[in-house]
Amino acid sequence: MPARLLLNCDSGESYGAWSMGDDAHAIPLVDQANLACGFHAADPLTMQRAVTLAVANGVQIGAHPAYPDLVGFGRRPMACTPAEVEAMILYQIGALDAFCRAAGVRVEYVKPHGALYNALVKDDALLSAALSACARYRQGLPLMVLAKADNDRERRLAEAAGVPLLLEAFADRAYLADGSLAPRGQVGAVHHDPERILAQAVAIARGEDFPGFDGQPMRLQADSLCVHGDNAESLAVLRRLRAALDAL
Amino acid sequence: MPARLLLNCDSGESYGAWSMGDDAHAIPLVDQANLACGFHAADPLTMQRAVTLAVANGVQIGAHPAYPDLVGFGRRPMACTPAEVEAMILYQIGALDAFCRAAGVRVEYVKPHGALYNALVKDDALLSAALSACARYRQGLPLMVLAKADNDRERRLAEAAGVPLLLEAFADRAYLADGSLAPRGQVGAVHHDPERILAQAVAIARGEDFPGFDGQPMRLQADSLCVHGDNAESLAVLRRLRAALDAL
Amino acid sequence: MPARLLLNCDSGESYGAWSMGDDAHAIPLVDQANLACGFHAADPLTMQRAVTLAVANGVQIGAHPAYPDLVGFGRRPMACTPAEVEAMILYQIGALDAFCRAAGVRVEYVKPHGALYNALVKDDALLSAALSACARYRQGLPLMVLAKADNDRERRLAEAAGVPLLLEAFADRAYLADGSLAPRGQVGAVHHDPERILAQAVAIARGEDFPGFDGQPMRLQADSLCVHGDNAESLAVLRRLRAALDAL
Amino acid sequence: MPARLLLNCDSGESYGAWSMGDDAHAIPLVDQANLACGFHAADPLTMQRAVTLAVANGVQIGAHPAYPDLVGFGRRPMACTPAEVEAMILYQIGALDAFCRAAGVRVEYVKPHGALYNALVKDDALLSAALSACARYRQGLPLMVLAKADNDRERRLAEAAGVPLLLEAFADRAYLADGSLAPRGQVGAVHHDPERILAQAVAIARGEDFPGFDGQPMRLQADSLCVHGDNAESLAVLRRLRAALDAL
Repeated sequence: MPARLLLNCDSGESYGAWSMGDDAHAIPLVDQANLACGFHAADPLTMQRAVTLAVANGVQIGAHPAYPDLVGFGRRPMACTPAEVEAMILYQIGALDAFCRAAGVRVEYVKPHGALYNALVKDDALLSAALSACARYRQGLPLMVLAKADNDRERRLAEAAGVPLLLEAFADRAYLADGSLAPRGQVGAVHHDPERILAQAVAIARGEDFPGFDGQPMRLQADSLCVHGDNAESLAVLRRLRAALDAL
Repeated sequence: MPARLLLNCDSGESYGAWSMGDDAHAIPLVDQANLACGFHAADPLTMQRAVTLAVANGVQIGAHPAYPDLVGFGRRPMACTPAEVEAMILYQIGALDAFCRAAGVRVEYVKPHGALYNALVKDDALLSAALSACARYRQGLPLMVLAKADNDRERRLAEAAGVPLLLEAFADRAYLADGSLAPRGQVGAVHHDPERILAQAVAIARGEDFPGFDGQPMRLQADSLCVHGDNAESLAVLRRLRAALDAL
Repeated sequence: MPARLLLNCDSGESYGAWSMGDDAHAIPLVDQANLACGFHAADPLTMQRAVTLAVANGVQIGAHPAYPDLVGFGRRPMACTPAEVEAMILYQIGALDAFCRAAGVRVEYVKPHGALYNALVKDDALLSAALSACARYRQGLPLMVLAKADNDRERRLAEAAGVPLLLEAFADRAYLADGSLAPRGQVGAVHHDPERILAQAVAIARGEDFPGFDGQPMRLQADSLCVHGDNAESLAVLRRLRAALDAL
Repeated sequence: MPARLLLNCDSGESYGAWSMGDDAHAIPLVDQANLACGFHAADPLTMQRAVTLAVANGVQIGAHPAYPDLVGFGRRPMACTPAEVEAMILYQIGALDAFCRAAGVRVEYVKPHGALYNALVKDDALLSAALSACARYRQGLPLMVLAKADNDRERRLAEAAGVPLLLEAFADRAYLADGSLAPRGQVGAVHHDPERILAQAVAIARGEDFPGFDGQPMRLQADSLCVHGDNAESLAVLRRLRAALDAL
């Protein structure tokens, strides 16, 4: 059985007068909180509050850097150069880390957000830029990327950069045979049945097979599972996931 | 004779495709570069370039945080709460420090910009908020504030916060009797004569009297002198200031 | 009895992925919808949706321009010049009017938002700037300002600019003797009792006396009443206000 | 010989304290000024000044809408939906038209900027969105698009939308055989020799052949030629272009 599978959740996504998510209920249930850094969500006070909440619950804080796109919530692909991506990630890690330092902790990992996260799955130059940002910010700062059937590409580039990887899996998404996520637009790409989600989470935690998008068994090696806690329904699933993983 | 008077210059003020200032010529002439942090000027790549230039010239890097006002260049007073000010300063220090860390150095001091700088001269709660941001970011990180005839207020609040102060003087501005700056709108508030600027700089560096706005002698205790280097004329004055202070 | 008192409501205040208010329920209950224009809230798609909703309900559309301050929701006073204020109001009117034109209607009035609204109560130059923006945008476009015990100042400046005024009253705020609003921070400044709110609304609609902050009777001449509809409680009050005014 | 070929120039591209271009010298030399609308450049006061300058010189004003990307100057492709593109163009047309109305004129055409302009060359849904924005803003408002060897696609979609087209050519760019622009990265893609630029401009104005990127003769049908006037060198070329076209 592999190392304990952690739970991570995108958090701190309010912006000024606008509220999003339910951090007060979700953060106590997870191991890692990916906190927005001001480019797709979060203003300085929101970041400070999210850090305070994470620290109070003993939850690891990860920087959640994104493309500069508030209106699009960082979900719209933007053609940024590797140099731009490296600099924007450095900026956002540092901004969040200021609140961590002020609270006596530090940014423990970096998980790019939205369209930037997806861009790293395919673009070697952008992945290397993100790795370089981590390496230059602090020796040993890990980058969280998508766990696939085969993460050789990511391991090779991370090793070259001297950056530890954290592999992230999804229990509510269907995987294609190559270990990439089935596109959201396709029927069956997102699991809504809590039993299915729980079963996939437990299989991933145990390093066991679970059915892929095409029904064939697949297996992932992962360090952390992405969860949601922004409404009553997702919080209910999150509580069951927490209990199921704790019971392993 | 007091400790050597340093020269500081607002730098790194370009933004995306828009260029401002002449950092390549100004930064080699100063001791301290106040680098914009993205709220009134500077994008991540601009910040990275400015840090690289400062490091290459052995110049100390200061964070130059501002109100969130790109269009107004941080010069328009905004009614922000002390909590907002503390958080926005923390955010900006951290963002800049990321590029410093990546370059093997660190933010050496914090000099608020524009309307935020001016607000600290009068508002105790905002000054305490800025001091708290420094103290919480890193033990011993100094805040740069306006040198006046009497800085007792600033020393008292800084001591309470455990933050070192850097006192900043101006050689091209006329001082009122209380050591505050004559408002820019008034005739005679800004010195344009290089001889006058040099004489005032040398007097401040030596801790000697120089004529105030009303002609009466005044004296300032200062650690650093604010200089400009954004065009040929100001660079010529800066070169003479550099030579004059080096010759003391 | 004066002309029918209208109900107006700040609307269209979502921003990208962030939702605010309950326009779908509030807009059908009011006569005038003040739509955010992108500076304190609203992105282009949000504006288009709000216009569509207002048009579908036969509600007048007003531009709700603000200082450029998304994080502060336009509520933080900013020291902008009259020229800046005039230009930013023109910009925002035009942006909103594009969606109105596309829907076959037009901006019917302009109600500045938040800190900008409050600034006009005291600053003649800013009020004249706002009036000038209306006059220059379209002959006859009205500006909505705070109804006070005496609006002579506003009438005089509006007449000079050739701009019609709409006077706005509040049923849930206590008025000082001079007809200005009691500051929110003071106890008793905001009415929470629906009966009190209804009584004040009806008195204003009838041009009758109602008790001011100090208990003394006061009277306002107003064209429109500012209402809220962002949650179940305020919607309940709004429904009663709608019924009460319709029954006059 | 075709109708007189106009000269158009991107203008009004300053932003707050940052200056760009030399509108004062360039605008008097052109027929059409494409004015930034706040998304990639220009704040409200900058827009007002640019409109004033264009009107004083009797130059037609075009809206120059862009993706919301100040740091990238609207040059970075962003994956926006057709609905987002239509709404952002409407917003920007209206914002600019407010200053036109205030100056007694109106937006005469729409030329998308940078990455948005390029996206329309290939994406039918986005081109239709831009056309729809024009049609919905004002009956008969033309859209300016890239003149190619064959503009059948653009004519077909424009006709369906009921929108007039303005075809734009470049005298300083090399064309591929299909009439698209040779990518800037390729050697020979941009002409720097003023004689070459003048010759290509005159050929386009006369509807005559000129050599393409591969040396083969090609021919374009165009209404307007894109020119630059941001520095002494480009202004010198612009003056010669103006004289050459006036002499035809």
